[in-house]
Parts: sequence; C-alpha cells; structure tokens
Amino acid sequence: MEEERGALPPKLDFSAWYNDLLWQSEIMDVRYPVKGLYVWYPHGFAIRKHVYAWLRELMDREHQETLFPLLIPEHEFMKEAEHIKGFEDEVYWVTHGGKDPLDVPLALRPTSETAIYPMYALWVRSHADLPILLYQVVNTFRYETKHTRPLIRLREITSFKEAHTVHATWEQAEAQVEKAIALYLEFYAKLCIPVVVSKRPEWDKFPGADYTMAVDTIMPDGKTLQIGTVHHLGDHFSKTFSITFEDPEGVQRYAYQTCYGISERSIAALISLHGDDKGLVLPPGMAPVQVVIVPITIGKRKDDVSAAALLVESTLKSAGIRVKTDNRDLRPGAKYYYWEMRGVPVRLEVGPRDIDAGQVTVVTRTGERSVIQISDLVNGVCSVLAGVHERLRESAESQMRSRLIVSVSVEEAVNALAQGVAVVNWCGERMCADVMEERLGASVLGTGARSPYLNETKGNCIICGKPGKTTLIGRAY
Amino acid sequence: MEEERGALPPKLDFSAWYNDLLWQSEIMDVRYPVKGLYVWYPHGFAIRKHVYAWLRELMDREHQETLFPLLIPEHEFMKEAEHIKGFEDEVYWVTHGGKDPLDVPLALRPTSETAIYPMYALWVRSHADLPILLYQVVNTFRYETKHTRPLIRLREITSFKEAHTVHATWEQAEAQVEKAIALYLEFYAKLCIPVVVSKRPEWDKFPGADYTMAVDTIMPDGKTLQIGTVHHLGDHFSKTFSITFEDPEGVQRYAYQTCYGISERSIAALISLHGDDKGLVLPPGMAPVQVVIVPITIGKRKDDVSAAALLVESTLKSAGIRVKTDNRDLRPGAKYYYWEMRGVPVRLEVGPRDIDAGQVTVVTRTGERSVIQISDLVNGVCSVLAGVHERLRESAESQMRSRLIVSVSVEEAVNALAQGVAVVNWCGERMCADVMEERLGASVLGTGARSPYLNETKGNCIICGKPGKTTLIGRAY
Repeated sequence: MEEERGALPPKLDFSAWYNDLLWQSEIMDVRYPVKGLYVWYPHGFAIRKHVYAWLRELMDREHQETLFPLLIPEHEFMKEAEHIKGFEDEVYWVTHGGKDPLDVPLALRPTSETAIYPMYALWVRSHADLPILLYQVVNTFRYETKHTRPLIRLREITSFKEAHTVHATWEQAEAQVEKAIALYLEFYAKLCIPVVVSKRPEWDKFPGADYTMAVDTIMPDGKTLQIGTVHHLGDHFSKTFSITFEDPEGVQRYAYQTCYGISERSIAALISLHGDDKGLVLPPGMAPVQVVIVPITIGKRKDDVSAAALLVESTLKSAGIRVKTDNRDLRPGAKYYYWEMRGVPVRLEVGPRDIDAGQVTVVTRTGERSVIQISDLVNGVCSVLAGVHERLRESAESQMRSRLIVSVSVEEAVNALAQGVAVVNWCGERMCADVMEERLGASVLGTGARSPYLNETKGNCIICGKPGKTTLIGRAY
Repeated sequence: MEEERGALPPKLDFSAWYNDLLWQSEIMDVRYPVKGLYVWYPHGFAIRKHVYAWLRELMDREHQETLFPLLIPEHEFMKEAEHIKGFEDEVYWVTHGGKDPLDVPLALRPTSETAIYPMYALWVRSHADLPILLYQVVNTFRYETKHTRPLIRLREITSFKEAHTVHATWEQAEAQVEKAIALYLEFYAKLCIPVVVSKRPEWDKFPGADYTMAVDTIMPDGKTLQIGTVHHLGDHFSKTFSITFEDPEGVQRYAYQTCYGISERSIAALISLHGDDKGLVLPPGMAPVQVVIVPITIGKRKDDVSAAALLVESTLKSAGIRVKTDNRDLRPGAKYYYWEMRGVPVRLEVGPRDIDAGQVTVVTRTGERSVIQISDLVNGVCSVLAGVHERLRESAESQMRSRLIVSVSVEEAVNALAQGVAVVNWCGERMCADVMEERLGASVLGTGARSPYLNETKGNCIICGKPGKTTLIGRAY
C-alpha cells in the first residue's frame, strides 16, 4: 500500500493539511465511491482501537455494553414527534429486500432511541430494575446534504458510542448527566484534548430532550467541533414508549432518561490539535506504536547493532510498552520521515556509538533529543513518554486559552471569531440571539460554560444591554 | 431486568431449549419488533466480547484490522455476475435519503467483496505490496425469507469477521486458504467446539469462488451448522475490479484472492454444544465470569465469611481470573440457580466450616465437587478451570464422533441422518448427488473431509456403484 504521496501542506492551511494528512498518515482513504463514506486504513483503525478501548474502559466502570439492531421500523421511528422533526430529513430508508418492496420501511439508525426504548419498555418493571446504564458502539447513518468531511461530517458514522440510561426521578437523571460529563472530561484528558462544556440553547438541544449539555473543542482554524453531548430526556421518551416502573409504594410511574454520545469526531480532534507540519502527533496513550527503534546499521558493526536493538525492543515490550523495530532496507532518514508522519511519540536510534556508550539516542515527536542509559531504559523511556504527553497537553491548552476570547461588544466579537470563540454576555432572549448570530455570522454554542480555560464574565448583553450570562459564540463544524 | 422466567425445557427438545435458553441466560432478546433482528443482552454481549477478542488475537498475528463502509453503490455491487446471482434475492436496498430518492441505490453489504475490491484496485501496485492480509468485524445483512433464528439465521448478522487477502499467484492464495483453515481450527479448539472441514460441492461454493472450504459442526439435534468458510477466489474478482500488480519483471498481472469468514454462529455453536438442562455452560476461556464466589453467611459468622470471600476474590483477581462475588440478599440456592443458568464454569462456596478448615468448597458447572486449600487457591482454581475445559472438550468430541456415521447404502444413510451426518461414498457426479439428496432429504456437505473424528472411507458410490470418495451428507441449518 505504498502509493506515491506528495508533500504535506503546512498546518496553517488547515483544511488542505487535514485532508492530506488523513491519507499520508494512513488514517482514512477518501476514495470510496460514495460521498461521505470513507475507508479506515489499518493504521487509522489501530488508533481508533486505542481511543475506543479507553472509552470502553471508562464506560465499563458503571455501564454495561450491549448491541441493538441497526434497522428501525418506520412505526417505531415515527412515534416521537419532536424527535422525528429533528431527523426526518437525514434518515436513510431501506425500502426493498431483494426485488420486493418491504411491508414496513426500515430506517438506518441516525441514533438509537427508537430502537432501544421499545425494549426498555419490556425490561423496566420495578424501581429495583433502576437505574439501567447501558451503552453500545455502533455505526449510525445521516444523509448529510452539506459538505462532508472524514471523521467530522459523515454519512456513515462508523464508531458512535451511545449510552442510554433510565432512572426513577428527574433528579437522578440530572445526576447521571453530571456523571457523564465527568466521564467525558476524563476521556479527553488522556487524549490531551482541552474542552469546554456548556448548555446548548433551547433551539439547539437534542430533539426530544429537556436540555443538552455539549462538549466542544476548538480546532486550529478557530472553528468549534462538538465532540460529545449529554442529554437529559426527562420523561418525553418514557411517555412515548411507555417505560414505566412500580415505585416502592406500588404506584406505576414514568421513568426519566438520559442519553449521551461520543463519535469518531474524538479522533478528528486528536489528529487536528496535535498534528504539525511533519504529520501526525499522537499522545502516547493512544499511539498504536509508542516507540519505534531505528537501528543505525552502517559499516561492520551491523550484527552488534541488530543485537542491541533486539535487546532494547524485548526489554521495552516486557514492560508493556508498544514498541516496533524498523528493520526495513531504507535510509535512516526515510524511516524518520515515515514514523514522524504516522505520529509515533518516541524514536530510539541505536548505532555503533550508542552501543559503545551503553545508551540509546532518544528523539521525541515533539522535538526533544536526549540519551538514555541502557541500564535505565524502561524508566527513561516511560519518563520521556510522560514528557511528550505533558507537552501535547500544555500546547493544546495554551492554544485553547488563546482561542477563547472575551468580547464586550459586537465589534470585539467579530475580531474574536476570526481567531476562535467569542465569550460574550447575553440576556438569554431568543431575539437577541438571532440578532447576534446574524451580525456575527456565528452560532450561540451555549451558556453556563465550564472550563478551566475560561472565567465567568460579568456584563451586559452585547445586543440589548440588559444583564447577561456568559455565553460562547462560535463557528461550528 | 429481572423479568419472571419459567422453567427451561429439556435439551432433548433442542429447538425449544435453544430459544428459551437465549432468553433465560440473557444472551439475546428476541422481542425486537422486526423479524430476524435481535438484541444482545449485556451478558450475551460479554460472551461475544471474549469470543471475538480471541478471534482478533488469532487474526492479528498476521492480518491487520480495518473497516470499510456498510453501503455499497449499485454499480459496484452489480459488477460481478456470479456474485450478484448468489445474493440478489437477499440484499436490502437503501433507496431514499430523507424524503428524496437517491440517485444510486445503496446495498447493505451482505458480504464486502464489492466494497473492498475497488479500493484494493487502488492499493495494489507492485508485487512488493503483496500479500495484503486484512480483516474487519462488521454487521452484514441478508433479507432472509426462510425461518429466522437468533445467532443462526438472521437479517442483521451483527458480528461478521471477514478477511480478504490478495496474492501474486494462485498457489500462494491456496496456501492462504490452508493457513485460514488452521487458524479456524485453533479458534474452535479454545471454544471446545469439534469441527469437520470439507470442500463444498461445485454448486454450493461461494458465488464467484474457485472453490470453498467449509468448517461445520453438528448440533445436538443432528443438523449441521456451517461455522466458517474459506474461499479461494482465483482471479475472478481481480479481473472484475482490475486488481493488478507489476511483477518483478515489470509485467502487469492480475492478482489472486481469498476471503474467509466467521460469524456469531460460532456463539450459537458454543451455546448449543455445551449447554445442558440447567442452562448455559461456558468453556472457561470464553466465560465473562469464570469463578463466582457465594458467601454462605448464616448465623453469627457473617463478618468472618465476608472477609474470607473478599480475600479469595482479590487473590483470584490478582492472578488474572475473572471472578465475581455474589453478595445479593438471596438464598444460596437461588444464587446457584442464577449462575448455573448463565454458564459460570466454577462456583466457590465460602462458609463458616470452610473458613475453619482453611479451604473453599468448589463446585464445577460440569458437576464435580471438591475442596481447595486457601494456601493453594490460585493453583487449585486454575486446575479446576482446566478440568472443566477438558470435560467440555471430551464431551463435545464424543458427541461429534457419535454423530458422524459411516453408511454404505442409502438405507444406512437414512438411519444415520436421524442422528447426525451420513458419511458415504460418492462418485462425484452431479446426477448421483441429486438422486442422493432427493432420496435422503439432505444435502451434500462436502468431500475430502478432514477431521480427527473421522477416517477416510473406501467404497463405491451409494447411488451408481462406481468408485467414490468419502462424502458428508447432512441436514444443514
């Protein structure tokens, strides 16, 4: 699969860089013959595996994994009015089996509420059955008519992690919303992705929800990317799907629900925030290969070098580090280029001089060069890996801080939006939001923002001048 | 999710037992409102996770995992004539996005040749790119018009592991077929599932293949279940999809291909072969919970017993054993019933008398009762788990042997088919096969059978009397 690939555009030209990087670092092939559908290369898939293994590890603490069908019969899908309105324009319909039309058209799930909740109606009987905390990782489908983009706006979302919970009270569902947010923050911390959590405005909440909390990050071009949502569903769906339970007093009550999801946009953010002009840069926790060993086999010491490289590899492997030795018949420079493009956090060079000195030369993907004594190999490498993680985190956080820009007027907000997100005050009235969105060419992301990169602002609505709440305005992907 | 469940039918009534067991042991819920689509309960999903983790471990030795889109455009799907003929009656078609008809109808993959091979045409350039050894684990779809059955005959196959390989020569592809068979034998060995490998007759090979090797097991009702297939595709698809490479002499050549798959039928076999009248029985390697600890907390020693149970749990957990303590407020008998139904291989009872004697009482799901000294806990439990594996293997193998019945006449074959598979001799002519299938009400499974449970037979075709080859005849699911 070694096709000829040209030079990577500079990251400043973000859109071109992103598209090219996906291909050059072998994450996705965009040449599949249907718009909005892409192919995971093995390297991209391996990254996905680590990201989702981490997500599953977090979910499995309190949730259980399950799997529901892809196909949803029209009559179930159409039960909840608001929900349909939110999705009807972007649902794919299966209408034929073989050459025959189906009796009941089947929707490809855009999300699984209407597949799961008819079963919850059967499963929930008593308060003792609650809470139910289940999740699944599935492919979901959206007939996107807008411009599609790999990992960001797709017609087949290949890796949607969706959780669906059932509770006895509204307050317990609210507490679950908070737990889910905490879990998502922990998830993104290991990916070194800084986020801001806010409450979406009424008109942008999930169709059928009481309210929606969203997790956003800011991409290198200043646009925001929604990389997680948590919805309090109230008793909307339980009333539609008859999810009731007998409370301790023997009274039948409607249950309260939440749902929350993360998709492969998490991987889009991972790639975009950390990558550079040389290619991908992966946080060590998510790297399929954490350490690559390049033996410098010049001259007569070839066997010595190979033996030393093998020893280094087996020592690191035993310590649980994901390591690979590149023994291909290529110049060292070509190997460096290859592994840098693929984002491997640490490269070890083992050459004759290193052997004589009882050391290896270490070069990190973030640019630091040092040596580690063979006698201290595992500790040394672990500490270098931890250093890479820290530098990626710091760099991403400082970019995040610089892209959250407090703005006290429409004019300031316009300037802010050229670089990132405008943090303004807004009175909460829809009419002011409409004016603001119109004048700024951007959207209200949310209020009640929570982020270590942002302080609450006090001030007046930048439109009407009445007292206002801290509000994020951004151009969203 | 504790709904009231009745008694399990005896396993002799296999079909009723199977359907009921899936529900009672919480593997699948069949009440999803579309025929042929089922819901994985968390317990079933956990079994699936262990089975597929093992399958991936085997595949990852030489293959790489990847992921291709579900939706295949009609023009790609229709390219290979034989292939279409094989699938056209059972393909689901997506015809609408939102309210609009699509320009190009999209097939839900019944299998992924036509999704993957257009990309292989782009990826394969030179002999140095070969072999390509990729696989994916995906949901696939068949519009089954026959009677559907959970895990066996479904409309959404949720867990199809399909591998697709590309080689420079026909012989290298043939060698890959043999490697795949060896891999599948290793896979099923850990599941304690005895199999027989044979070459499917010409008329039953994969549409578009040169030949098909199949892996079958025999279910408790004597019917065979195909639980793996390996296809030599020759250069059929490479010619259709223009998969060519430059050989070392600079000549463009068509590549040779194989594909091979395993689906959740592997789990159907696992459940069916090992289960008994009390419920599921899981081989330790595939059990989500390998050891359940039931503290017998009667009388005043409650705290002592709880402390001892906790110690036993943490000791086993540190040794990497999947262990769970059942502290629910239920009678021990109810707990035994619960875990037996779910197939947990080993139960440890910890009561006051056990503590005094420095031991735990061990009861295996296969019926053996013993004690293990606390001082030898990990060794003792590992050896008991190994014993359960051995007994399941032996029992399944002896059933397999008794169901492969050599038959030298049509009359004998009729009797054989009442219990399992008839092993006959057949001349290889289609006409004799048709007569045989007609008179026996069963199908030719294959020739050239390889199985440790079966010797090659020498004899004449049971229809025409000419010299014949050992051939398996069975009633297949």
